[in-house]
Amino acid sequence: VSLPDTQSQEDTRGIPIPAVGIAPVALPLRYRDEETGATVPIEAEVALYTTLAAEARGTHMSRLIEAVMEGAHQPVTAAALFDWIQDATGRLGATGGQVAVRFRYHVDKSAPVTGQHGFVAYEVELRAHQSGRQKLLGWRLGVPVTTLCPCSKEVSRYGAHNQRGRITITASIRSPKRYPALAAFLTAAEQLGSCPIFTLLKRPDEKWVTEAAYDHPKFVEDVLRDAVLWLQTRGDLTWFSAKVSNDESIHLHNAIAYFDQAWADPDQARPSIWDWDPWG
Amino acid sequence: VSLPDTQSQEDTRGIPIPAVGIAPVALPLRYRDEETGATVPIEAEVALYTTLAAEARGTHMSRLIEAVMEGAHQPVTAAALFDWIQDATGRLGATGGQVAVRFRYHVDKSAPVTGQHGFVAYEVELRAHQSGRQKLLGWRLGVPVTTLCPCSKEVSRYGAHNQRGRITITASIRSPKRYPALAAFLTAAEQLGSCPIFTLLKRPDEKWVTEAAYDHPKFVEDVLRDAVLWLQTRGDLTWFSAKVSNDESIHLHNAIAYFDQAWADPDQARPSIWDWDPWG
Amino acid sequence: VSLPDTQSQEDTRGIPIPAVGIAPVALPLRYRDEETGATVPIEAEVALYTTLAAEARGTHMSRLIEAVMEGAHQPVTAAALFDWIQDATGRLGATGGQVAVRFRYHVDKSAPVTGQHGFVAYEVELRAHQSGRQKLLGWRLGVPVTTLCPCSKEVSRYGAHNQRGRITITASIRSPKRYPALAAFLTAAEQLGSCPIFTLLKRPDEKWVTEAAYDHPKFVEDVLRDAVLWLQTRGDLTWFSAKVSNDESIHLHNAIAYFDQAWADPDQARPSIWDWDPWG
Amino acid sequence: VSLPDTQSQEDTRGIPIPAVGIAPVALPLRYRDEETGATVPIEAEVALYTTLAAEARGTHMSRLIEAVMEGAHQPVTAAALFDWIQDATGRLGATGGQVAVRFRYHVDKSAPVTGQHGFVAYEVELRAHQSGRQKLLGWRLGVPVTTLCPCSKEVSRYGAHNQRGRITITASIRSPKRYPALAAFLTAAEQLGSCPIFTLLKRPDEKWVTEAAYDHPKFVEDVLRDAVLWLQTRGDLTWFSAKVSNDESIHLHNAIAYFDQAWADPDQARPSIWDWDPWG
Repeated sequence: VSLPDTQSQEDTRGIPIPAVGIAPVALPLRYRDEETGATVPIEAEVALYTTLAAEARGTHMSRLIEAVMEGAHQPVTAAALFDWIQDATGRLGATGGQVAVRFRYHVDKSAPVTGQHGFVAYEVELRAHQSGRQKLLGWRLGVPVTTLCPCSKEVSRYGAHNQRGRITITASIRSPKRYPALAAFLTAAEQLGSCPIFTLLKRPDEKWVTEAAYDHPKFVEDVLRDAVLWLQTRGDLTWFSAKVSNDESIHLHNAIAYFDQAWADPDQARPSIWDWDPWG
Repeated sequence: VSLPDTQSQEDTRGIPIPAVGIAPVALPLRYRDEETGATVPIEAEVALYTTLAAEARGTHMSRLIEAVMEGAHQPVTAAALFDWIQDATGRLGATGGQVAVRFRYHVDKSAPVTGQHGFVAYEVELRAHQSGRQKLLGWRLGVPVTTLCPCSKEVSRYGAHNQRGRITITASIRSPKRYPALAAFLTAAEQLGSCPIFTLLKRPDEKWVTEAAYDHPKFVEDVLRDAVLWLQTRGDLTWFSAKVSNDESIHLHNAIAYFDQAWADPDQARPSIWDWDPWG
Repeated sequence: VSLPDTQSQEDTRGIPIPAVGIAPVALPLRYRDEETGATVPIEAEVALYTTLAAEARGTHMSRLIEAVMEGAHQPVTAAALFDWIQDATGRLGATGGQVAVRFRYHVDKSAPVTGQHGFVAYEVELRAHQSGRQKLLGWRLGVPVTTLCPCSKEVSRYGAHNQRGRITITASIRSPKRYPALAAFLTAAEQLGSCPIFTLLKRPDEKWVTEAAYDHPKFVEDVLRDAVLWLQTRGDLTWFSAKVSNDESIHLHNAIAYFDQAWADPDQARPSIWDWDPWG
Repeated sequence: VSLPDTQSQEDTRGIPIPAVGIAPVALPLRYRDEETGATVPIEAEVALYTTLAAEARGTHMSRLIEAVMEGAHQPVTAAALFDWIQDATGRLGATGGQVAVRFRYHVDKSAPVTGQHGFVAYEVELRAHQSGRQKLLGWRLGVPVTTLCPCSKEVSRYGAHNQRGRITITASIRSPKRYPALAAFLTAAEQLGSCPIFTLLKRPDEKWVTEAAYDHPKFVEDVLRDAVLWLQTRGDLTWFSAKVSNDESIHLHNAIAYFDQAWADPDQARPSIWDWDPWG
């Protein structure tokens, strides 16, 4: 017996839909760092979308899931993300599509003095979009750091408030063929705070990070500007934004600074108030 | 004794910062619906940002908090949001600023048959941005609905899967002087699903909503297109996006459809992959 | 036409249900501090449950919502919570019930030197349970503080890592008639860290809190023990637990210490591994 | 140079601490199902605590991290959890300790008619506690299901509201030597709703799940009682609780039912109001 195909009904409202799909689909994947070739298991969430022509009433969501499950067989790389999109658009006859994958990336770090090992988790979100021949590739990385307040240090006879902060870098990648080396990028980014974060610190290490942070006091604005200077030197990004958010130890709210290459002149009119997240 | 003012140190990195500030600051406020004049207490979170000139090392975060606490004395309206910004930019000598306020708006709704009362909570985020004379005003509204799947209804001898869904409408408001009437907007939006959500339903009401949903099966794409048709007729918006997300009752992931006026032609190249949230 | 009452069908599985109900119901309420008489608007979430006899198939959820909406007319106090339960058990013919209300309580605090004002939000959850004549009353309070690490201070030539921490006190109240004065309790609790948290701090205040924290270094264990000593002196509690959790500025994980009066001898066998939340 | 050991200072407050430690530590682990021998990579969060004697000022948190990183070398099993605890208590000279590990467990399920494959994620939390020779072992499992409302079906001419629900089973395991087979437990649990959840469903499958749910309408109370009947037959548990929570498709709140073996007689006085989570 053939079942009716409601999705394929003709739609007369005249509205093409730029993105319809499914998210978040949680599943075990592998991530391959193309620089080092290392492949690690990741616990991922996937979002997969395609366009829908004005004439079709609905997409076939199950085909998107088929593409996700098929895509799970190969490690996540830039090329694999475009394979997911092409598989999805092929199954659905769509003109374009988008995939996003987010996961925690665990780096086994050595403590600064004793060299003892401990994993630190960085937040990674990869995105790819294809429309006809146009391919866009990007990533968003969340990097925890310690920040120590220069004002607090200056005005106080001793001590200085410090806290866990987070640098979030969002970037469009110039080449759709491959991502920059992830671990190296994260390692560079976490130098931007007053001190990197570690999971395992023995007492000599704790002395080291305490003094290092006190020796490198930085406002969120300082961390942000140093991030911008670094990101501007990279030739592999076509656009970036950076956000620094401090879980202020003396307040219940956060201090946050944001930079978007497209707004580099703050006195320029801005096209939209919705193009960033002011909440964290 | 005068304390050093580290923030006012000269900065030589040459990078103006478009947004530096504080978020989320939780506090009790009042919201005034300008259409009806009704003023209700709200539990709000505030984000307040200003620009920072390239020459200044840091902003003075405490002045932003002063502006927030001062702003708390008047009810939240479009005009009040610009007052917050002007207070903040004035205190800091900044050329522009942005404020966002988010809260739950409670509507006392009547059940469809028995008329019994119960509060339903809608999610509201208001944003305002001012740069020189340019003023931008916007809101984002989250509206819960019931959706019932047309495919499930068609292919099955009886029943149809249905679920809690959410319509998220983000819009830029044409006039910076006032917001459209909020309660009326929400009431219109919640007609777009298969059936509105209620908090208190007696059995005759439950019969009514069950049959109403079954009589109005809608895909996320249907809800989205009906939202777009409705929003296009409004003269008070200069831009909008709409997202419909279903907490699928038969899956662990959501089905999601998204429309952005600026991407209305899905075959057009898209400027960015970061201009929306594909996760929910 | 009379509609079938499926819930009232006889159940033969022989299993009475201790708690069946609805949560979270978000709505605007008022909270009355009985010590001061002050009544403030709150944005609350309510959970309301009653027992269900073995013989009945289902409860009537809509009557619980009726009780919630009825309860919303009077300010939240200990007596009001028991009224909610009695209203619910009366409507349902149940032998017992439980209500929980959670909300943020905003205190307008003065900065320590300049005296400037700013709201700080404390997390409050109130619970009441009634079974026959037995009445139980409790609260859980979340109090943010700054903590500064004594080890970091001792081993380092200068500086000391510090961070936002949270003291969570859960207590059963001796008298079911009224709660202890809330604002006074919170003010006492926030003295237990290295320094209280403030929302608005000018530079002389920032100097004060920085030095105060450095002068009062405390491990999570120190804060916890001081909390226990204080709570043991109170005559108005029949049981308490306390948890201190530090958002470590040098790590991505938290340091946490927990005390439960019922486990006061840690070498005693513990009846359960599920009686607390080890995650935060 | 030897650094001062602040933690080892003598404490005179006379308060032993039952649990002090670190959480959540995120890291890649492997889980071994001892029934099948299958070992899978998991993305885990770990909480590790030990007791602290009244005489010692602080624990040495870094030794707990060392135990976590050492424990990461072997797959997670019941025996491995007690190894973690013994490693931690040995390093710290503590009399007891507790470990908790939480992660998503992905099962590759076949659609009911077409047999197509898709991963479904279940939530798993494992806990172990050791004090002297006493060993306690437990797990908490979160199982998504579809539930369809019997009342809605009965009162309506057609259709019935249904939604995603979640069954949460918390249990103490009789033998500290091994966990019951996980996949088999989850498969049994997800039969308790109106229909299991799947990630990949083609149209014949969607017809099947829609009709199956309509043929098996169940209140949260029905699902709960069937869970209790099933759990009571198992000989491998010494205690259990079960909670069923429905994301009601017609409301913004959830309907929830809870059973705790220790409260099986709801007319009995209950020792505490804090021994469960009424919020979801």
